Amino acid sequence: MKTLRDIGEDALIERLITLVPKDLDPAAGPGDDCAIIDLGPSLPELQLLKTDALVEHIHFLPSAPAEAVGWKAVARVVSDFAAMGGRPGHFLVTLALPAETDLEWVEGLYRGIGACLKRFGGILAGGETSSVPAGSAAVISIAATGWVSRGQQVRRSMGKTGDSLFVTGLLGGSITGKHLNFIPRIVEANWLVSNFLPSAMMDLSDGLAKDLPRLAKASGCGFRVDEALIPLTPGCTVAQGMGDGEDYEMLIAIDQAQAPMLVTEWAKAFPELALTRIGELVELGGGQALSGGWEHFQGITGD
Amino acid sequence: MKTLRDIGEDALIERLITLVPKDLDPAAGPGDDCAIIDLGPSLPELQLLKTDALVEHIHFLPSAPAEAVGWKAVARVVSDFAAMGGRPGHFLVTLALPAETDLEWVEGLYRGIGACLKRFGGILAGGETSSVPAGSAAVISIAATGWVSRGQQVRRSMGKTGDSLFVTGLLGGSITGKHLNFIPRIVEANWLVSNFLPSAMMDLSDGLAKDLPRLAKASGCGFRVDEALIPLTPGCTVAQGMGDGEDYEMLIAIDQAQAPMLVTEWAKAFPELALTRIGELVELGGGQALSGGWEHFQGITGD
Repeated sequence: MKTLRDIGEDALIERLITLVPKDLDPAAGPGDDCAIIDLGPSLPELQLLKTDALVEHIHFLPSAPAEAVGWKAVARVVSDFAAMGGRPGHFLVTLALPAETDLEWVEGLYRGIGACLKRFGGILAGGETSSVPAGSAAVISIAATGWVSRGQQVRRSMGKTGDSLFVTGLLGGSITGKHLNFIPRIVEANWLVSNFLPSAMMDLSDGLAKDLPRLAKASGCGFRVDEALIPLTPGCTVAQGMGDGEDYEMLIAIDQAQAPMLVTEWAKAFPELALTRIGELVELGGGQALSGGWEHFQGITGD
Repeated sequence: MKTLRDIGEDALIERLITLVPKDLDPAAGPGDDCAIIDLGPSLPELQLLKTDALVEHIHFLPSAPAEAVGWKAVARVVSDFAAMGGRPGHFLVTLALPAETDLEWVEGLYRGIGACLKRFGGILAGGETSSVPAGSAAVISIAATGWVSRGQQVRRSMGKTGDSLFVTGLLGGSITGKHLNFIPRIVEANWLVSNFLPSAMMDLSDGLAKDLPRLAKASGCGFRVDEALIPLTPGCTVAQGMGDGEDYEMLIAIDQAQAPMLVTEWAKAFPELALTRIGELVELGGGQALSGGWEHFQGITGD
């Protein structure tokens, strides 16, 4: 018997999406931070759709403050909207919890959800609660609509050879706290797509070593990264910066001709958030391989 | 410490929705089968949003055929769109599964999801997979957009005193198989809202004894039901017909003046599906109480 652990998340998804009807509009298909749906030319924006789940013991520990878990559940989705150049719309919250769950914990969770929605302009439209058997992990699943102005949507797949690669902020060590209380880079991403034309973007959730190859593969490119340039959280090694995951920083590919102006303007707009050029996209087969990063169903891979 | 079991699902939801920002548009708020979002007068339809989860051991047993579980996961959401008078749009699938899960089982699940999407015109737009700790229950969470023509949307809350109450099909005994392979009543519901003006509608997921009081409460009414009129699955008692849950039939409130014509036209349109008048909405405080039905976090209630 072959199990999910044997094949890992990316290969699983590739197999599964062959089994269901797909939209004729390729923009709506799976494989990016969000799905993009065009609801017709009468709307000035495209709709984004996203679902994301937090699982107890995997994405948070039972000892984590409930408010922080609720914040994280929403912030991860906001980060995905940021990665498309968009903004949040309506949210649906699904809670699958053991009947033994402390009511106060659930109320704290909802306060955290509410605080994050309020901060970033999301609206709760509904949700569902279900029990899970005693001893099962709690699951918090968030689904949301978002919006992106026509012409400002950024996909993973439009990077091209020669593009400069940037990351925001510092990478590594998220487990010491940032993974619970991070600020999604939505203000910065919205500024970016309003002022520049990034060719590809995604948020770093599984670690640069896992996510950069995804962006490059989706774009039909290879990549080269100068490890000495990777902006590290103080105290972190390069391996941690590449592999820890849950950074929720933006990985940006942009035409190299725009790169110098971007660096200058970014420093004026966001003096307190680093934007660091770490490498470039190259021709397919001409770049590096990376190891490390978080692999669902398999845990940390390589180093 | 107060737990979720102590307060039950409806009271939990009432407490939680006070903790988050709500849309200024009351149509978008929680409390119906779906949220209704008005995306502006340029669109002839309103958007529906829905999320629904299946939990192993709660909504399906590990021994259930994977294809049937996938079908059920999507069919429950289609049934909710039917209850609003709408139709399915784009779907997001979240799988939270132990790494030990058999890959063939997951592929079977997706084939069932695909079959149900194809049958009812839903489109897969994306999704997510996450691991859960070994021994935890599998959770399959479906989120979807849907659409309803302006003026045809039906809420739970617009029922009025004197309305006749109808149910489709037969109630009770779903656990013997129907809960896995039911046909959502979307063709019938779409016909209904195109030809009549039901004042309230919902799908029966937790049992008539649980769901009818919800519809009546949302409408600010009481209700009277003639138990002798409840259409029972052969072999089921009245208590089973009222309390088993997972019937996925439609509960309809409609002005009594429309009732005779509805009965006549329904019989012509759907000669093989019963439509049965079971009672009426009455003034608040003037009706019955019912016991039984499925209570999340508490299990079966009453007798």
